[in-house]
Amino acid sequence: MDMEKLVALCRRRGFIFQSSEIYGGINGFWDYGPLGCELKKNIKDAWWQDMVRNPPPGPDGQEITMVGLDCAQIMNPKVWEASGHVGGFSDPMVDCKACRGRFRADHLLSFTIIFPNGEKTLISGLGSPQQILELNAKKLERWQKANGVIDVWPKPIAFGDLNEEGRMKFRCPTCDEEGMLTEPRAFNLMFESHAGAIKDDANKVYLRPETAQGMFVNFKNVLDSSRVKLPFGMAQIGKAFRNEINPRNYTFRSREFEQMEIEFFCHPSESMKWYEYWRDLRKKWYSTLGIKSGNLKPREQGKEELAHYSIGTTDIEYMFPFSEEPQELEGVAHRGAFDLNAHMKHSGKDLSYFDEEAWSKDAAGRKTNSFKEWLKGNPAAEEIEKYQYVPHVIEPSAGADRFTLAVLCEAYTEDKQPDSKGNLEERLVMKFHPRLAPVKAAILPLVKKDGMPEKAEKLYRELKQCFKVEYDDSGAVGRRYRRQDEIGTPFCITIDGETLQNDSVTIRDRDTLQQRRIPITEVEAEIRKALRSVS
Amino acid sequence: MDMEKLVALCRRRGFIFQSSEIYGGINGFWDYGPLGCELKKNIKDAWWQDMVRNPPPGPDGQEITMVGLDCAQIMNPKVWEASGHVGGFSDPMVDCKACRGRFRADHLLSFTIIFPNGEKTLISGLGSPQQILELNAKKLERWQKANGVIDVWPKPIAFGDLNEEGRMKFRCPTCDEEGMLTEPRAFNLMFESHAGAIKDDANKVYLRPETAQGMFVNFKNVLDSSRVKLPFGMAQIGKAFRNEINPRNYTFRSREFEQMEIEFFCHPSESMKWYEYWRDLRKKWYSTLGIKSGNLKPREQGKEELAHYSIGTTDIEYMFPFSEEPQELEGVAHRGAFDLNAHMKHSGKDLSYFDEEAWSKDAAGRKTNSFKEWLKGNPAAEEIEKYQYVPHVIEPSAGADRFTLAVLCEAYTEDKQPDSKGNLEERLVMKFHPRLAPVKAAILPLVKKDGMPEKAEKLYRELKQCFKVEYDDSGAVGRRYRRQDEIGTPFCITIDGETLQNDSVTIRDRDTLQQRRIPITEVEAEIRKALRSVS
Repeated sequence: MDMEKLVALCRRRGFIFQSSEIYGGINGFWDYGPLGCELKKNIKDAWWQDMVRNPPPGPDGQEITMVGLDCAQIMNPKVWEASGHVGGFSDPMVDCKACRGRFRADHLLSFTIIFPNGEKTLISGLGSPQQILELNAKKLERWQKANGVIDVWPKPIAFGDLNEEGRMKFRCPTCDEEGMLTEPRAFNLMFESHAGAIKDDANKVYLRPETAQGMFVNFKNVLDSSRVKLPFGMAQIGKAFRNEINPRNYTFRSREFEQMEIEFFCHPSESMKWYEYWRDLRKKWYSTLGIKSGNLKPREQGKEELAHYSIGTTDIEYMFPFSEEPQELEGVAHRGAFDLNAHMKHSGKDLSYFDEEAWSKDAAGRKTNSFKEWLKGNPAAEEIEKYQYVPHVIEPSAGADRFTLAVLCEAYTEDKQPDSKGNLEERLVMKFHPRLAPVKAAILPLVKKDGMPEKAEKLYRELKQCFKVEYDDSGAVGRRYRRQDEIGTPFCITIDGETLQNDSVTIRDRDTLQQRRIPITEVEAEIRKALRSVS
Repeated sequence: MDMEKLVALCRRRGFIFQSSEIYGGINGFWDYGPLGCELKKNIKDAWWQDMVRNPPPGPDGQEITMVGLDCAQIMNPKVWEASGHVGGFSDPMVDCKACRGRFRADHLLSFTIIFPNGEKTLISGLGSPQQILELNAKKLERWQKANGVIDVWPKPIAFGDLNEEGRMKFRCPTCDEEGMLTEPRAFNLMFESHAGAIKDDANKVYLRPETAQGMFVNFKNVLDSSRVKLPFGMAQIGKAFRNEINPRNYTFRSREFEQMEIEFFCHPSESMKWYEYWRDLRKKWYSTLGIKSGNLKPREQGKEELAHYSIGTTDIEYMFPFSEEPQELEGVAHRGAFDLNAHMKHSGKDLSYFDEEAWSKDAAGRKTNSFKEWLKGNPAAEEIEKYQYVPHVIEPSAGADRFTLAVLCEAYTEDKQPDSKGNLEERLVMKFHPRLAPVKAAILPLVKKDGMPEKAEKLYRELKQCFKVEYDDSGAVGRRYRRQDEIGTPFCITIDGETLQNDSVTIRDRDTLQQRRIPITEVEAEIRKALRSVS
């Protein structure tokens, strides 16, 4: 599928607009139009329903406990010191002292050139090795002519890996001045702002770069205010912000995005079981909503990729059309006790869990009846950890915008269908799963007379109490079908002459194009059935 | 009702927490806990369903067209120049040159003191007139003793209204230094940040102070991509940010908040009709969700309060317990063509609307068949405006957090109910409308044996596919009822001995405390019925 065609459809039909388009847009920000915002809402609601309100049974068939949370986007900045984002969430950046340009150090590459007389110089630039060679092709050709055979070292060297002599030979990719680039410096990806009247360091705040930390810092609040016991999960949907230097690939890598995150807390000894449970469940969830298994690539991260605290991470990747490599939709990470330990250390608060139930159950065989008293007997550490421990955490972290984009890519279909005269005609159809489709059904009176509009309007008014539906009486019915296909409406309900006689309607299936005649009273049930279907 | 009791309940039961509590919180930001986030989600979903997916008929009984939108929180900063927020969205602030304190100029008040010898001085401070007199009571007493009868001018003067001599006598309310306060300067309430690698003015961005502008700048995009015709409305739910100097009254005035806004576009000649429609509809909506009419105060703004462009604004106010004056829940404003005109001027784009349908309909009686040709005949301006015009806008703008707080206040009830022995016992109950209640029903096996848990779990698993429900088998059933009352669960379903014999359960109504016995198969329908009820 051609990405440009999808982008054009999304704009033409009102799924996604460039943010602030009438002012020339703004790099890395997107607006969801009428259909896009219904699609994205359906995705978020499906996640909330399937993960929070009605999660499937656990690995041993048990009920699992999930609670929701909705935290502020701006938190106390100490949260981000504890999480490591203030210190470590950065890209290495290089500035040009001449033109004030700024570049990612690992995107600045150079090739060493050796002249026949042994002298060396650099060709350099911003981008992939191939781009840099192409940009400098003329220069290389000129040198070749002037000096005879010159030697280009085949492996490019990143700016940060050059010695000082090399860095002084590097030209700024914007202004072409030589030797004006600074050493690489860490550039933090968090958006900064100030809360309160004075813009000083004491008032500095950050836009959250992830929703996860809101759940960790509320761990104790949730334990104290709910009846939850471990294992249990917290879930949150909300915006997060990363000041990407190079936003790209449509909505895939943007500066403002929405996450759907779960933090599942459990006993360390059970953490691998829960890691596997969530990894498999999350992959399966995408399939039930219409993503073909073949396009979903779960990829266990190698040891060298893992964050230092992580025991295991699986990226659930999707074959987006803009890349030959699958790209991350969701990461399911086994984070151990890293986050709770970090917040314990920085806040000075005890975030460990005491499993009173397990203690009481085992108490029968013991002589002590209080946990404190029992601790005085110096039991072995692994004995204590049965009852009191810092929970391990499994984190399935999904991107709502990324999944929305995957759903759009997956749905986009071009086929050929017979027109009214039986000739094959190109058709563009968005094959959304009915649960995600922005519009569930279109109500179409065949003609605007003979009482058909009245019948159709009555049905429309009934259905719109349950579903997002559209009423369309414009133009030829064939054209109306085509429009509904383009916006991915699963059903077209047509009110025709026969409806007036026997209260039956035709229901047209978007994907098979089959039309069946059913009683008007059964339309609601037909739609409901489709919403419950599993791909 | 006592506000402190509500705040305590909200924390104890997991409705609302102070954000980043383990790090000492952060002023003006709040987190919704497990129950609060379900409550707020239910409120937002009810608004979306009732206003966007299934709006009621218009003033003449017609279907009205509404579309949703979901825009980025960070927009091109030119949007905020056009809207007037960069220039005008500010409070006057005064700095202390000695201690770097900063204060709202209109909160700094002074009283003039005249001594018997005719000399004058000031007593001054930060706060209400009464607070300032109280703070200075000792000083006044001392002066009175030393100088005989002194005269206090009864009317306080705000800092900004003092002459220079007066300002030099004003003491800083923090460090008490005299004459160190600067002249008042405008302090913008928008949060600022930078998008991109360099922190300069070219990269400056703002966190949106309202969701409204996202809809205005997308007006043309929506017209071009949907089949909508005027009149129609756009709707958006999302976060907005205002750097309040003094966040207060729990979640009522916070720095991060969520709006539910509608921009309804119509022909200028019909705008008063639509203004009245939305004003009445929006007030009624709150009543259908359980807000007593007596606590809702719609207040038409006086001419002197109106923004210069507004033809009329009604604030829908609610009697919050923290104030003797009703406070704004929602503003319904007739904004005329102000916003679209401003964006036309700043973007250079044509945002007027051409009513092709009206033109075609009237065309029969004319000799020209194109609008352009007809314009050449110089028809009267009011003739042209029938077909081509800048729409007027009605803006019902509601606060999701404010309504959530109103729902919490309204639901909070203390009553006395007989306990198992018939003695009257204090009861705390949250009387949420069933549609908004975080938990719709609790499933309670009377005892943990005799097959009751199995029956109860089966019912639980069935119901949780439709509603947020809880399973509770802990302790005495009376205590379980009390807990469900405190979190506002409308129904408790008890599985008892009789259930095992004839598959009937008892269903307890939270408000009337009546228990009825119904077949287990009817539980789902009973809950559904309550969700559809109108208060």
